[in-house]
Amino acid sequence: MVEYDGRGFAGWQQQPGKRTVEGELKRALKELTGHDHVVHAAGRTDAGAHALGQVVSFDLRGGIPVRRLRAALDSRLPEDVAALRAEAAPEGFHARYSARWRRYRYRFLERPARPALERGRCWHLGRLVDVPAMRQAAQALVGRHDWTSFCSASEPPAGRVRELRRATVRRRAGMVELELEADGFLRGLARGIAGALAEVGVGRRPPGWPAELLRAKDRRQAPRTAPAAGLYLVDVLYD
Amino acid sequence: MVEYDGRGFAGWQQQPGKRTVEGELKRALKELTGHDHVVHAAGRTDAGAHALGQVVSFDLRGGIPVRRLRAALDSRLPEDVAALRAEAAPEGFHARYSARWRRYRYRFLERPARPALERGRCWHLGRLVDVPAMRQAAQALVGRHDWTSFCSASEPPAGRVRELRRATVRRRAGMVELELEADGFLRGLARGIAGALAEVGVGRRPPGWPAELLRAKDRRQAPRTAPAAGLYLVDVLYD
Repeated sequence: MVEYDGRGFAGWQQQPGKRTVEGELKRALKELTGHDHVVHAAGRTDAGAHALGQVVSFDLRGGIPVRRLRAALDSRLPEDVAALRAEAAPEGFHARYSARWRRYRYRFLERPARPALERGRCWHLGRLVDVPAMRQAAQALVGRHDWTSFCSASEPPAGRVRELRRATVRRRAGMVELELEADGFLRGLARGIAGALAEVGVGRRPPGWPAELLRAKDRRQAPRTAPAAGLYLVDVLYD
Repeated sequence: MVEYDGRGFAGWQQQPGKRTVEGELKRALKELTGHDHVVHAAGRTDAGAHALGQVVSFDLRGGIPVRRLRAALDSRLPEDVAALRAEAAPEGFHARYSARWRRYRYRFLERPARPALERGRCWHLGRLVDVPAMRQAAQALVGRHDWTSFCSASEPPAGRVRELRRATVRRRAGMVELELEADGFLRGLARGIAGALAEVGVGRRPPGWPAELLRAKDRRQAPRTAPAAGLYLVDVLYD
């Protein structure tokens, strides 16, 4: 399980010529074991998005004992990625395909002043939002739905159904935090929901509007996607 | 009132050839008003230490209305400093000399893994600490004392008495947080206390030891000062 600060990365997924979390992890594994590894992550986070508990699986090569793996990786990863835990997985385990539920957090900053300590780690709305209205709007999205209005247009139209089982909004530590738990997050889904809820929060749309948008199955009616800076992959649950 | 991320600064106080918070603030004020300003801060934080609520006073020149000052400064300060609030002060107000109490926070990280998202923003102890023992040790320091054992040797020996009126230790959001409230913090005092309490936390010293060290008035018996990265100026109280 790894934590990372997304500010310095072009996202999870390895891409030629870009600094990615996957790329750094593979480099550290190669350095440590002398072997190339194929790694799978539970969530392929966007450029600029963060992770508090990204789960990664791979077939460990090179004979290093699993009990030494976490510390060995932690010392070889760059300062913006940390290895939190490492353990032997059950036969056939796959961080992505075995995942049952994923939990994401999105953080909105209300105060007028820019974030200095939390820059790149939240969406600066710069005004007070209506938290009960956002909560009501979020609640109305819970269930198994076709998320066409919220996800990226690059997702295949036939595969846009996911179950959102929890959607909460609360003030905490100077931020407004949205938490979403679903069996899967289509590309852009978490940020799409955050963008729609922000419209409700600032009073541009009524609390019932995100559910209407969901039913419309029309991406063109959706507002701007919320910036990746506010997004955190918090946790992944397995059976 | 300003917030800053201390990682990019050689501390509050202006020094030739170094990037400091004071220097950036004076530059922004000059840019905004066309005039040089003399500014005073409630706490002259160390290189690498942070502020959530640093209070700064100055005689505003150049005719800009106070109600526009915060936003105007916020847009001219670098991304790691934010202008939280600005208001007209009572006649004779001085951010440093008028301050009655200052509150500092120190954050310790217990987990084995390095901090990725919180790097430069806590002291990574890397092991579980005994919070009740630290709390007991902190409590025993409350009162009006000569802090020779804890502050920097550069403080004049005749002026090392300060009143610590609150010292609390608790776990919060994955960290152990020490909060100190005193009528003044001598150079190195907050980090000196944090360093002594860490010795208790990791079990190298008993809970009664920091109070013994205090009574000894001997800096040479003190442990290593805690790193600036964990230190935050949280709040300043005025009459």
